[in-house]
Amino acid sequence: MSTDKLDSSLELELAALKEEGRSKSSERIIQGYVPPEKDRGPRYQLVGSDQAYMRFNSNAYLSLSNHPELIEAADRATREFGVGPGAVRFIDGTFIHHVGLEERIAGFVEKPAAKIFNSAYTANCGLALAISGKNTHWIGDQLNHNSIIRAMRISNVPSENKGIFRHNDMADLKRCLDAVSPDMDRVVVIFDGIFSMRGDFAPINEIVEICREYEEKFRDGVITVVDDSHGIGAFGKTGRGTPEYAGAWPDVVVGTFGKAFGVNGGFIAGSRTLIEAVRQKADTYIYTNPLSVADCAAAIKALEICDSPEGQALLTHLAAQTKRFRKGLDRLGLESIDGPHPVVPLMVRDTAKTHELVSYLYDHGVLVVGLTFPVVPKGDETIRFQINACHTPKDIDQVLDLLGAFFSTP
Amino acid sequence: MSTDKLDSSLELELAALKEEGRSKSSERIIQGYVPPEKDRGPRYQLVGSDQAYMRFNSNAYLSLSNHPELIEAADRATREFGVGPGAVRFIDGTFIHHVGLEERIAGFVEKPAAKIFNSAYTANCGLALAISGKNTHWIGDQLNHNSIIRAMRISNVPSENKGIFRHNDMADLKRCLDAVSPDMDRVVVIFDGIFSMRGDFAPINEIVEICREYEEKFRDGVITVVDDSHGIGAFGKTGRGTPEYAGAWPDVVVGTFGKAFGVNGGFIAGSRTLIEAVRQKADTYIYTNPLSVADCAAAIKALEICDSPEGQALLTHLAAQTKRFRKGLDRLGLESIDGPHPVVPLMVRDTAKTHELVSYLYDHGVLVVGLTFPVVPKGDETIRFQINACHTPKDIDQVLDLLGAFFSTP
Repeated sequence: MSTDKLDSSLELELAALKEEGRSKSSERIIQGYVPPEKDRGPRYQLVGSDQAYMRFNSNAYLSLSNHPELIEAADRATREFGVGPGAVRFIDGTFIHHVGLEERIAGFVEKPAAKIFNSAYTANCGLALAISGKNTHWIGDQLNHNSIIRAMRISNVPSENKGIFRHNDMADLKRCLDAVSPDMDRVVVIFDGIFSMRGDFAPINEIVEICREYEEKFRDGVITVVDDSHGIGAFGKTGRGTPEYAGAWPDVVVGTFGKAFGVNGGFIAGSRTLIEAVRQKADTYIYTNPLSVADCAAAIKALEICDSPEGQALLTHLAAQTKRFRKGLDRLGLESIDGPHPVVPLMVRDTAKTHELVSYLYDHGVLVVGLTFPVVPKGDETIRFQINACHTPKDIDQVLDLLGAFFSTP
Repeated sequence: MSTDKLDSSLELELAALKEEGRSKSSERIIQGYVPPEKDRGPRYQLVGSDQAYMRFNSNAYLSLSNHPELIEAADRATREFGVGPGAVRFIDGTFIHHVGLEERIAGFVEKPAAKIFNSAYTANCGLALAISGKNTHWIGDQLNHNSIIRAMRISNVPSENKGIFRHNDMADLKRCLDAVSPDMDRVVVIFDGIFSMRGDFAPINEIVEICREYEEKFRDGVITVVDDSHGIGAFGKTGRGTPEYAGAWPDVVVGTFGKAFGVNGGFIAGSRTLIEAVRQKADTYIYTNPLSVADCAAAIKALEICDSPEGQALLTHLAAQTKRFRKGLDRLGLESIDGPHPVVPLMVRDTAKTHELVSYLYDHGVLVVGLTFPVVPKGDETIRFQINACHTPKDIDQVLDLLGAFFSTP
């Protein structure tokens, strides 16, 4: 059969998306990696262009994706065990690398146990499937990641069992907790550690404190969950993420190996019982192949590096370059949202100018992301810069020079 | 805070699962791969055991996971481009390998375009998110995979917009189509190609024929979707899967690189407009890192092999071993469900005996999956054997000998 009729309708839907400003432009395609040299970081070649680009829009904060030890670990695992697991975990698709990574990440985030997923996206869905019941009430920050919102859907949480608090607003969190029906057995408060569009972070110590006050009101208490995908590995003195920075660990930690650690995959870490519940009840864990052994081996190596003097040096360099970039923005009189995280938003506050600047930077070899309405509220148009450990002072200065030139031209 | 209260409740939930017979036993862990030798296939070493095991429960039907060319392709991609993409697709996480795999798989399943996902699980979720609207009605086979059922949830399909037809029952499919409200704009009929617990297949030619009769009733027509995760690569004369076997291509094909092809990842293939809608609207595509370049490079190589004389030889060998095993079951007077697919169910029809046989085979070095109530109806207790191209005639005969010995002992 033809899908001409469907296609016509979909064309209209796509046109409407474009009209709303929510359409994604076509994907640029990376066709080459140029290793770092002397005082400049790595560059990327794109299909259809002769230029070499700096990525200032990569989540690989520690720049480990091309680290020889990760590549070696991935290759060794593949040569010994093959490219794919061939089965789901409970049907003998479990390899030592899966279990090894679970032990390693649990220890890293100071929890008794962990389960790995193909992504933090499916980890959030899996957590909700594992712990959500008829009398579970969920409360989340309004700026939580899409995967948390979809996790509510996939686990059938009815709207009356959901509360949303204003971004990082603790009084509003209390309002949400006060509003929970006393019929509820279990309350889950879930929030991003780092908010990826802004680079700001959840006041985890305050959240944990507030939730403790409500602990006795519900049979199973109030469970705190952080999705610290942008924090773990990149933030806090030893890269433990937002909990380390804020000085408090939530009950459950969701995270990813696909950002700071430069690999792929996600995880849930928590009590042994919780993790067993995840294994038994999280469909997005049960009914799908696990990560390749290569991904696991590379992620284990990334965690080892993060915990070594080399990792400490990367974190120090990352923090220094972030500071250098932020100081540069200040010097240019440009506006940002304060904070120590390597996500540095430049508040442009104008749609046309945002698009113009993204193009200007692209033309000059810098890849960044522009955020305009409706992704951010009108007036909050932003360019998101992401500092990575591979960026050199010269790279940073080059971008600052470009920004200076752009904003000084009338 | 502690999660003692939550843990106590979860313990009760886990105990209830066990009581219902739905609990999964602890995971066995593969710690070694022993390459094939002479007339025997590969063996696997498990943690805590000195024995070497045959996998008769692997979905890697073509046994390509340890193929030197796949390993070489994965390694080369990793060395050149790194272990992880560092970003989502639309934020410069797109590499030539992603696009290359999309072009290759689209051609393989005879569609104009395709999008790859981390798994067929997230592909099904993504498809539903992309094409489901308020006036979309979904109809599915009652034995459809968990990911299709969860896809309905994640895309908020209300129960009145859903119909389920009895497994492979075309009269009941018609009943479901007749029952669709005339207010609906779009009807989607979705079904597994191969039903993984039984090895039987959807009568795609009949389904397509029936759906065509209802095409004019709805603004966007009736869209047929096959999830052929167990078919693509393993079934049909040239490995095109169930559509090739049944002689009819549905409008949309969902599939995986993680079964026959031995790698990881999933895909949706269809019209260019549909695939663009997926790119713009499928959250499980948009908000998560894509597969590693290693996975993509290995999958491309798997597709190349499948389309080569070597692939044809693997398919021929796979079909021959499947036949050999089925004939052996017949000879032993054991019951199965007829069919040419390498999933061969042995109908044990008794819970205790099923558990006993699974243990017996394990003790003798064969890994299989037993299916008991409530996974299958009472009386339908089954052991699922999955023939792979790496199995030699000697391997097959060894398993048959074990079955003979087991069933001849009173």
